Amino acid sequence: MTGFHYADRLDRARKEMAKHDVDVLLASVGSDLPYLTGYRAMPLERLTMAVIPQRGEPVLVVPELEAARVTEVAGAFDVRPWSETDNAIGLVARLIGRAKNAMVTDQTWAVFLLALQDELPGTAFRSARPLTEALRVIKEPGEIELLRRAGASADVVAGLLTVHDFAGKTEAQVSREVAAMLEANGTDAAGFAIVASGPNGASPHHEAGERIIGDGDAIVVDFGGTVGGYGSDTTRMYHVGEPSARYREVHEIVLVAQEAAVAAVAPGVAAELVDAAARAVIAAAGYGEFFIHRTGHGIGLDGHEDPYIVSGNTQLLKAGMAFSIEPGIYLPGEFGVRIEDIVVCSEDGADRLNHSPRQVAVVG
Amino acid sequence: MTGFHYADRLDRARKEMAKHDVDVLLASVGSDLPYLTGYRAMPLERLTMAVIPQRGEPVLVVPELEAARVTEVAGAFDVRPWSETDNAIGLVARLIGRAKNAMVTDQTWAVFLLALQDELPGTAFRSARPLTEALRVIKEPGEIELLRRAGASADVVAGLLTVHDFAGKTEAQVSREVAAMLEANGTDAAGFAIVASGPNGASPHHEAGERIIGDGDAIVVDFGGTVGGYGSDTTRMYHVGEPSARYREVHEIVLVAQEAAVAAVAPGVAAELVDAAARAVIAAAGYGEFFIHRTGHGIGLDGHEDPYIVSGNTQLLKAGMAFSIEPGIYLPGEFGVRIEDIVVCSEDGADRLNHSPRQVAVVG
Repeated sequence: MTGFHYADRLDRARKEMAKHDVDVLLASVGSDLPYLTGYRAMPLERLTMAVIPQRGEPVLVVPELEAARVTEVAGAFDVRPWSETDNAIGLVARLIGRAKNAMVTDQTWAVFLLALQDELPGTAFRSARPLTEALRVIKEPGEIELLRRAGASADVVAGLLTVHDFAGKTEAQVSREVAAMLEANGTDAAGFAIVASGPNGASPHHEAGERIIGDGDAIVVDFGGTVGGYGSDTTRMYHVGEPSARYREVHEIVLVAQEAAVAAVAPGVAAELVDAAARAVIAAAGYGEFFIHRTGHGIGLDGHEDPYIVSGNTQLLKAGMAFSIEPGIYLPGEFGVRIEDIVVCSEDGADRLNHSPRQVAVVG
Repeated sequence: MTGFHYADRLDRARKEMAKHDVDVLLASVGSDLPYLTGYRAMPLERLTMAVIPQRGEPVLVVPELEAARVTEVAGAFDVRPWSETDNAIGLVARLIGRAKNAMVTDQTWAVFLLALQDELPGTAFRSARPLTEALRVIKEPGEIELLRRAGASADVVAGLLTVHDFAGKTEAQVSREVAAMLEANGTDAAGFAIVASGPNGASPHHEAGERIIGDGDAIVVDFGGTVGGYGSDTTRMYHVGEPSARYREVHEIVLVAQEAAVAAVAPGVAAELVDAAARAVIAAAGYGEFFIHRTGHGIGLDGHEDPYIVSGNTQLLKAGMAFSIEPGIYLPGEFGVRIEDIVVCSEDGADRLNHSPRQVAVVG
């Protein structure tokens, strides 16, 4: 993650801290840490924590054996390695000192937060979400460029899958093939690939398993990986042999719903209205009860982040927000259909980052 | 993860809760949840939480779109799906009710803990570590069998690597090859493979990168994956061409240190003494300052868990504990050497789960 201006991000973080009356921001595992420092910590039992006072020098507390990897990045931070026999919580507590108000990033482990609360009874800890959301929800041009490249890589794979052999393979095997195809086509790291065939498609987060894909199966393939830390997340539908009229009907409804939601995207529109646009199409077709999840989620350094495209979220979209649009219909015992693209909200409406055909592909 | 008696585990959990005077145990993402329920939640922003009262019915709160995957497992739990527009924190708070003392598992996200603390000012939250450690640190025979199979799979790969081509490939490429070899030889899921060549070997957690492996390079390969959810974690050394006398000397010291630590394992021995056994060998040879990490960590459903084999840990080993023994010497700018096996403490001392040769393998 080079090319970003971490010093600017730190300045913005401090302005937000002032606005929220926060003395110190604590960032541990998860994506807030690499956003602020360029360094992503492994989610392990050894504490990594950036301690960012509203005034004063920011410190990055890291396990000593990670220090070599850290000092290549994290330029603005004073890197403070702790050895295997040091008390890392004590070290962080001393850095927090007499701060009254601390904010903690979302994915920080409870075991560390509880230990800090024990050490510092005079400090109030609260969620950093309002602050980190303000920092991260509008993407910088460099971030959008990485999202675009990740999307383009996924599009290549979506295209290759239209001429791929599915029948006779297990879902798990196809899932591994998709991961390899992503890596061979511009994606940095092996990502994820949900492959849900036949009735398994009716479970939106089905794990690719040992079911052998056969004739007449609809297959939901929901996949993505990262480029420079920024994700792709695309869903396309494949069908072994000609789909039934019923499948075609349901696919068309989901496609129209997806188009309607994409068309609803514009600055100033509430996130929930984009959800409502997709839901209205599906409900009008009589399948409302089978669309059992929100329409989308933000994407960036996290695979799921703000803004969430869900009923009840009155947050207004702004240019630079990036998110998925992925309505679906799930028919228990039969099949599922989901169609998903990443879009960026621009002044002119939705800028799609995925361009591969959204029609069902008939495969062997 | 079938074949385990989750009802027994729940009974044991409740006995521990009584001992710790805890009214309710809250288990979210991480390995405590699958240990207790058979269900591993994806670490996502939608709350999954098992709410286990000391008396009364245990409930598993899950996002609705995961419910289909959950009901296959989690037999003893009342599964309570929440829909995209429900308030999941409110649901959990109502289940906690007027509990005075709650324990929270380690990897629960801070954002959820903070929200529960806000909702329930009358409830004291503390770390569940003492309880979950008591439950998980002694492995059941079925767990040891899975660890043994994971170790055997890693041994096959360690052997294949002795005749593998390294020179001319990037570390990242070899890392991918190791992951594929694990999967082809009995490991369930693509695991991890640190490949650290030449001077990169001096960083214990180096990420496999774009460095091209060449003649004269020592290569640290630290890899593992899971079988039925239980991990392997092995490190072996490879060398392109004949190693120098200096390399041979350092390798031999690490080997003797590893043997010494393995020999120190027995029920009733403090974990820190196993660390001291390895450290004494390396210090006596004059390399003490270059052994910059603990000697080992427990392994099971988590890649790193109790017991930690580290100075200061006076915990006594017991039969059934499983952990790594992995001393190393890291020479900045030159190379690193680490040798790692998983062992189980048995009544007769260490039962090694890895049997592949620990000598350096000369490769091309």
